[in-house]
Amino acid sequence: MDRRTLLTGGTLLVAAALSRDAHARSKAAVLTHEDSHFMQIAIDQAKKADYPFGAVIVRDGQVKALGQNSSKRNADPTAHAEMVAIRAFLSGHEPDEFKTATLYASGEPCPMCMGAIIWCGIRRVVYAASIAELAKKIGQIDITCRQMADATPFADIDIAGGLLSANAMQLFDK
Amino acid sequence: MDRRTLLTGGTLLVAAALSRDAHARSKAAVLTHEDSHFMQIAIDQAKKADYPFGAVIVRDGQVKALGQNSSKRNADPTAHAEMVAIRAFLSGHEPDEFKTATLYASGEPCPMCMGAIIWCGIRRVVYAASIAELAKKIGQIDITCRQMADATPFADIDIAGGLLSANAMQLFDK
Repeated sequence: MDRRTLLTGGTLLVAAALSRDAHARSKAAVLTHEDSHFMQIAIDQAKKADYPFGAVIVRDGQVKALGQNSSKRNADPTAHAEMVAIRAFLSGHEPDEFKTATLYASGEPCPMCMGAIIWCGIRRVVYAASIAELAKKIGQIDITCRQMADATPFADIDIAGGLLSANAMQLFDK
Repeated sequence: MDRRTLLTGGTLLVAAALSRDAHARSKAAVLTHEDSHFMQIAIDQAKKADYPFGAVIVRDGQVKALGQNSSKRNADPTAHAEMVAIRAFLSGHEPDEFKTATLYASGEPCPMCMGAIIWCGIRRVVYAASIAELAKKIGQIDITCRQMADATPFADIDIAGGLLSANAMQLFDK
């Protein structure tokens, strides 16, 4: 556990927009200063990415895997930040370890990435910019990660969005 | 183009169930004997897979990539047949070549796989067993590949389901 983020921990906010449309299988996550810290790392990844999307997988308060969109440099349209982070995590960890991990993404996971998150059993997702916001800048599949979780009988995922979203969206104006 | 499949080509059927719920962005594909031939290859892949799912990517009448669910042997919950086939295709082809490819899957692509199909620009998908059928045997995310295509403003994908579905479903009873 990273000492600094532990010490700055504590309840920051509950994303109000999310609690309004909370459903049975996805729950609105409580956000902490630690979440802001890790989201900033995801956004820093986005700054170096082919398209401005970054992701971080955290477990026990430590960064376990980083991902940045690499779809151009790898000539792989599936190399979204979340997929890159998941593949990096799997190269050094057993899938079971996903169960206590949090995935931070600078952009709301698309259905491909959210499907991967669900199949991997990741229980907590925090994102910055929403698919609705991203769609104003770049083509999106119009299905939210919450809709994905709610359509999955076996999924039990805490989801929170909107954390540092202005910072994440700003990267599209550069 | 494979000569045998060309010679046996010709309209076989239009999946009636699909034409009933056809939407703007996904179109019901016309199926041929060639489609049955390649679907059988996908089903043969499923027979050797960790979970009974197989996929084949075909271009110019030739098999370009094979995939079988490898989630156990690779300790990778994202190693669905379609993802494995897509990764295999990308290892030897440029993403642009997806545009004239057909993906055959023994099971309807889940949102993760369909998301990958959309981002890769694959224009034609043929599957055997539907998500509704598969859900009776194994946990599924309850969003069809047609719903995915219809939620994607930039996608233009021919989709047909139900081809040899009984054969694909039989694999779950072994």
